[in-house]
Amino acid sequence: MSDVRTVGVDLGGTNTRAGLVTDSGEIVGRFRCPTRLDLGADAVVQGMVDCVRGAAEEAGISEIQAVGIGAPGPLDPFEGVLISPENLQCMHGVRLKEQLEAALDLPVVVDNDANMAALGEQWLGAGRGVDHFMCVTLGTGVGGGWVSNGQLMHGFNGNAAEVGHITVDWNGPLCPCGNYGCLEQYVSATAMVRRTREKLEAERPETALRSEGLTTQAIFEAAEAGDGFAAHMFEETGFLLGVGLVSLVNVLNVERIALAGGLAQAGERIFEPTRRVFMERGTVGVKEHVQIVSAGLGDDAGILGAARHARSVV
Amino acid sequence: MSDVRTVGVDLGGTNTRAGLVTDSGEIVGRFRCPTRLDLGADAVVQGMVDCVRGAAEEAGISEIQAVGIGAPGPLDPFEGVLISPENLQCMHGVRLKEQLEAALDLPVVVDNDANMAALGEQWLGAGRGVDHFMCVTLGTGVGGGWVSNGQLMHGFNGNAAEVGHITVDWNGPLCPCGNYGCLEQYVSATAMVRRTREKLEAERPETALRSEGLTTQAIFEAAEAGDGFAAHMFEETGFLLGVGLVSLVNVLNVERIALAGGLAQAGERIFEPTRRVFMERGTVGVKEHVQIVSAGLGDDAGILGAARHARSVV
Repeated sequence: MSDVRTVGVDLGGTNTRAGLVTDSGEIVGRFRCPTRLDLGADAVVQGMVDCVRGAAEEAGISEIQAVGIGAPGPLDPFEGVLISPENLQCMHGVRLKEQLEAALDLPVVVDNDANMAALGEQWLGAGRGVDHFMCVTLGTGVGGGWVSNGQLMHGFNGNAAEVGHITVDWNGPLCPCGNYGCLEQYVSATAMVRRTREKLEAERPETALRSEGLTTQAIFEAAEAGDGFAAHMFEETGFLLGVGLVSLVNVLNVERIALAGGLAQAGERIFEPTRRVFMERGTVGVKEHVQIVSAGLGDDAGILGAARHARSVV
Repeated sequence: MSDVRTVGVDLGGTNTRAGLVTDSGEIVGRFRCPTRLDLGADAVVQGMVDCVRGAAEEAGISEIQAVGIGAPGPLDPFEGVLISPENLQCMHGVRLKEQLEAALDLPVVVDNDANMAALGEQWLGAGRGVDHFMCVTLGTGVGGGWVSNGQLMHGFNGNAAEVGHITVDWNGPLCPCGNYGCLEQYVSATAMVRRTREKLEAERPETALRSEGLTTQAIFEAAEAGDGFAAHMFEETGFLLGVGLVSLVNVLNVERIALAGGLAQAGERIFEPTRRVFMERGTVGVKEHVQIVSAGLGDDAGILGAARHARSVV
């Protein structure tokens, strides 16, 4: 099938972004608009329609074959229905696939944004050519997507690869998901800031960091400037991420793991302890073959993955 | 393809058992012999050959199309090579597939025994008709096998579904696998006995149980006879198993989990706390749909799964 052109859309809490993507994975037209949550579901859906049309127009291409949407979960990828995304309250229960297919007169697939990022990375980024691949996004939460035998994995009702919600300490803090001691409670950007604050207050360490307005970027800059406490917080976060990746690889047996999102930008500060713990705790015969790398596509991963996923219905 | 007949072999540390299995999953001939580890690898392999031929003879069937072997891991299922099974020291590095194919002049597949049990259960037992299924065996260790989209999952080098080696407490005891706080360190039969002994010595609880010669069967019988401490040990083991299953379902999104092995025989003593914790900690939208059931095929699961897997090379 040559000359397949699909549009990938990344539905975020702030912006909706679309890209028209060619056979070879090039984004040849882009469009974005604010996600108008304040105006309700119809306005948000209309924004997505505008983005698809805008991307096609910008590319000067009138014929596209399908549209893929990456949206925050939980959602039902088989029916294309959003369930209860935390940052998109007005979209709960919206039958996105149905509505967009009616508006665009094109086949539409809807999937989890973390899945779409993983698929994008596997197609054109850090997972290129790797049939057993996982992408872990360290942001406000910890999301993930996972490809096995070259196929994006969904499980029985589309909720596979919720990698942020494996337990690393059954006695740990309650997670909004209902579980305790989830990986997300330790290694998301939000969790790293919370844990740093808790230590600042409980232990009064010698550090230039202050609780007010604390961000992972500030912790990173302090660590780079020689702040030992800040460096320790990265060490500890990397340690716990390594612990989580050992569990995941022991079950999924993926060959490459890409780390994406803000925290992954900290480079060796996070990768060094993560890889070290992974090698200390991983299984002999497996760990030596597993690569833990940085994601390669940045913000485009989701758009490219959604466009790639749309090809499954062409 | 009608009238496919394959032989499934279960290579254990004590016995080697084989069954000739028909299209419909009936075992129509059986053979077993002691696994002669004392005589070395060649004798063990010869025992497997004898079992295959013995099962065919007992069935009165001369023509079989392929043979499947379930063997203790770690092993390489793609090459059919045993790597370093703990209870089969003399078999390390043995190219089982190659040797058996030469001896039998038939196609042979070799896979992990826990995988074969899972495949057997999915074909004819507790996972029948369930495309996203996991079987967890609670024995000396904690093994597992997992079927997604109806396919047995292997990962990149055949070590997927090592479900006993997910972390439930990163600060927990060292596991022989190199990881700390693995599920296996809490919910295998061995671990349950060890934890019970530790508590008997540290806490001197009121109980009829004694450290010497302690078994899970003894703990079960005491619990049934009204021993509160023994009942509590099942409660605690079920709790930790539930914690582990939450992590596994959050990643694998399987719809049904079958529990096999000695501990699963304890029935509601183990199932009740396991299911309760699973419902307390699992993810809304998933947990309501997941069934945690008892495996259905007993010792035949491995033979049936291996025979089923052999059909993939017919």
